[in-house]
Amino acid sequence: MSAPRSPNPMTMTEDSITPMNGAESLVKTLLACGVDTCFANPGTSEMHFVAALDRVPGMRCVLGLFEGVVTGAADGYARIAGKPAATLLHCGPGLANGLANLHNARRAQTPVVNIIGDHASCHRQYDAPLTSDVEGWARPVSVWTRTVDRAASVGSAAAAAVQASRAAPGGVASLILPSDVCWDSGGTVAAPLEDAPAPTVSPDGVQRIARVLRDGKPALLLLAGAALEQRALADAHRIAAATGAQLMSTTFNARVARGRGRFAVERMPYSGDAARARLVGIRHVILVGTQAPANFFAYPGKAPRPYPDDATVHVLARPEEDLADALACLADALEAPRIDAPESGPFEARAGTGIITSQAVAHSLNALLPEHAIVVDESVSFGHAFYPGTVCAAPHDWLQVTGGAIGDGLPLALGAAVAAKGRRVIALQADGSGMYTPQALWSMAREKLDVTVVVLANRKYAILQHELAGVGATAGKTAMDMLDIGNPDLNWVKLANGMGVEAALANDMARFNDLFAMSLRRPGPFLIELSI
Amino acid sequence: MSAPRSPNPMTMTEDSITPMNGAESLVKTLLACGVDTCFANPGTSEMHFVAALDRVPGMRCVLGLFEGVVTGAADGYARIAGKPAATLLHCGPGLANGLANLHNARRAQTPVVNIIGDHASCHRQYDAPLTSDVEGWARPVSVWTRTVDRAASVGSAAAAAVQASRAAPGGVASLILPSDVCWDSGGTVAAPLEDAPAPTVSPDGVQRIARVLRDGKPALLLLAGAALEQRALADAHRIAAATGAQLMSTTFNARVARGRGRFAVERMPYSGDAARARLVGIRHVILVGTQAPANFFAYPGKAPRPYPDDATVHVLARPEEDLADALACLADALEAPRIDAPESGPFEARAGTGIITSQAVAHSLNALLPEHAIVVDESVSFGHAFYPGTVCAAPHDWLQVTGGAIGDGLPLALGAAVAAKGRRVIALQADGSGMYTPQALWSMAREKLDVTVVVLANRKYAILQHELAGVGATAGKTAMDMLDIGNPDLNWVKLANGMGVEAALANDMARFNDLFAMSLRRPGPFLIELSI
Repeated sequence: MSAPRSPNPMTMTEDSITPMNGAESLVKTLLACGVDTCFANPGTSEMHFVAALDRVPGMRCVLGLFEGVVTGAADGYARIAGKPAATLLHCGPGLANGLANLHNARRAQTPVVNIIGDHASCHRQYDAPLTSDVEGWARPVSVWTRTVDRAASVGSAAAAAVQASRAAPGGVASLILPSDVCWDSGGTVAAPLEDAPAPTVSPDGVQRIARVLRDGKPALLLLAGAALEQRALADAHRIAAATGAQLMSTTFNARVARGRGRFAVERMPYSGDAARARLVGIRHVILVGTQAPANFFAYPGKAPRPYPDDATVHVLARPEEDLADALACLADALEAPRIDAPESGPFEARAGTGIITSQAVAHSLNALLPEHAIVVDESVSFGHAFYPGTVCAAPHDWLQVTGGAIGDGLPLALGAAVAAKGRRVIALQADGSGMYTPQALWSMAREKLDVTVVVLANRKYAILQHELAGVGATAGKTAMDMLDIGNPDLNWVKLANGMGVEAALANDMARFNDLFAMSLRRPGPFLIELSI
Repeated sequence: MSAPRSPNPMTMTEDSITPMNGAESLVKTLLACGVDTCFANPGTSEMHFVAALDRVPGMRCVLGLFEGVVTGAADGYARIAGKPAATLLHCGPGLANGLANLHNARRAQTPVVNIIGDHASCHRQYDAPLTSDVEGWARPVSVWTRTVDRAASVGSAAAAAVQASRAAPGGVASLILPSDVCWDSGGTVAAPLEDAPAPTVSPDGVQRIARVLRDGKPALLLLAGAALEQRALADAHRIAAATGAQLMSTTFNARVARGRGRFAVERMPYSGDAARARLVGIRHVILVGTQAPANFFAYPGKAPRPYPDDATVHVLARPEEDLADALACLADALEAPRIDAPESGPFEARAGTGIITSQAVAHSLNALLPEHAIVVDESVSFGHAFYPGTVCAAPHDWLQVTGGAIGDGLPLALGAAVAAKGRRVIALQADGSGMYTPQALWSMAREKLDVTVVVLANRKYAILQHELAGVGATAGKTAMDMLDIGNPDLNWVKLANGMGVEAALANDMARFNDLFAMSLRRPGPFLIELSI
């Protein structure tokens, strides 16, 4: 195969003169489609892609030492950059190592161009050791999955993958590239495909919801995804002010812009009991970009839903629809007056003092969070006061692990920091979860990223000890050993140092406040082990 | 539901008096089936299992901080114990994190009872955040997959899983337990199911292979799995001595018993070029417990097979057949005389000296390896001299990562050490691969296991730099950055200390020899960072 040649030598471009292999057409197509960042953990089958990176300038490659770092970082990157990064994974096992954080990305509806190199097509028949069911593993987390069968199709498949990942509300597009389609010549750069606009909701549907709200019975507007952006939240607040409806976001959100001077929204409580108590009397649940909420887990004899059994569920807009437009139309249909953003006037807050509590750390975050910080919250049980306690902090974005696959906090922080040059990333990281993918620290050091990692070190799976008690079990030694990670104690300062990240221990709030403030003044990553 | 009651009070057992939930019947059935070790990373959906551990004594539970530790350890355990361990994983993402090492276990044909807790059956319909395709992810690595639908079936399903995992040649049996089948009462302990013996090969088949060998043309006996046990190897050597056939094992093997006084066998070279050179002139390839070998990867313009294109492939025995019996029958059919095991007479070897090379380290291992050591080899590129260089070391077992999913070395060493009380485990670990699942170090410290970890720290993906050169690529900075893990340098001493494992750095062979010998005399794990 050779590259297509221009009929007129005067119009020949470099691409039409030099035969291009599939790998080069991949890199060039990604760049043409605006994908200029790649989180990678390559192997032998990806060497042609790696070689192409030298020949085609413009792709920023960030190496991860483990695939869960790569996929979690791609998720964090896109949440901040507003466009997908590419991943580069090696065969089925490399994909498998990245699946848990792709599951989180799927739940966050994050666009990810998930590239998996595989055995050459002709080699699959021999069942060599790495042969595995790559498509079968990719499909459950992907909105789009394709295995390319020849070099000439690599470019067009890459463009289709970018488009599929960006189609509202966003998702993982898995592009599987056998190594022969990368090394064969005949690669063709594809032009970017247009993004389809998110469909708008029907005026009839809006009127139907307006009638429900005019009815005056207690109603909840449950917001998710793009409905949590400030413009959409402004209209949601108009609706609430005009009708008395309550506003709430889903429990776990990809990104919420919040802080002083911004419209705020409460989160659905994680605990089903707490949510039921909070939503007593609600008669209408109106969904804006999410499905009817269920509790995180089922428990014997408990209701599966966080809202009253006799509430009626309505859909204003599905996740793939234009959520901001739907809220604006509803607010207009209700003739709700415009309202101003909250006052952002003079602000005084004091950092937490004394012994280390969730509330004290929340006070410190509220006082010390720098302007336009990005908070990545995987604080699990200890962090219960952090979100409500920082509603008046300097304007910031709040990112969460969305799919319950723990260990995503550090990778998300890595990716967010790559996307957000000039903004500080604050990773609030429980210790148990932090040990799932600690390798992200090394990539932060390598890329010299401005990340402050706060490890909340309680040396146990506190949430599980709570769950075990909830099961009504008498917790004896064998069971408690499964929930205690304090034997031996992890030393996060040494772990961080071992991966090239400076770190220090804080045993009280004064030391924490000092270290936290200091970390904001210095470039590069810094880890604080907060002994709680 | 209530537990079945005995009609005669005099014969009532404890189990028939106390209603039992599904989780308790699971633990009791596993114990009845001889599965008394569980590698676990539990979550909320597994709390009833964890609670049952307190009520039912006898199960040794080893906590892993990441699921790849759990699955790799279960593989290492069974290779040494000769019987399966259970895993305990949390929902789809927990399984996903363990898939790569289950892929290795599948390639090793290791029996593993792979237990995954999932959402309550009634909760799946709500698509809560952790909902995922557990069966879909499990099937590609499993010989047997079942989701249990009621408490009364948990015991029988567990017994069936144990049986399925042990059926020759062995494999991963994935048992998916929705949390309601664990918390519901009605659990019933099941009796162990009998192991089906591996079928023997037909006498006709043996005679056919005997005729091929009598023919006298150059032949290769390719051995795998149980054909690498000493009794089987003795018969393989009889055949070789009588016919001139060459013996070789597959490149990556679950376990090879070797060292002084034992029958040895050469490994198929990893490199396709080296294998082709080694097997020039071979006319017959006779498979004993393996499929026709293919090269690990395909390369443009290179043959996919390591043996000559005109060789004929024959099957003496398939992996699921009785390999030792097949070799004995073949040796008898050839009237091959019995031969003695090699002399194990006086042995003198000197540890390696001077600068650190693969050969020097091999000399040290050859001299210093303790009797009945278990070597776990994930030494990748640097370790090329280790296997051939230790053929005369004290008797030991040699374990390898079998499926190409790197990062399994430390988990395998953990599991082998749990199974092999009183034997020293030596983990020969490349640094790049070691960073995939370093959390295994913490479990070694927690369980106070006698493991000497030797990290071969070259601070790069050396094998990939070799592959990139093989691709014919000019390696520029962008590409080389993807293959260099030396910026920043990992500090393995600090990483190990951070997880409670004592450690030291060796910059020359004298220091390495001292540290290695010292590690053998002290209980518990020790890590040597060997700067290469």
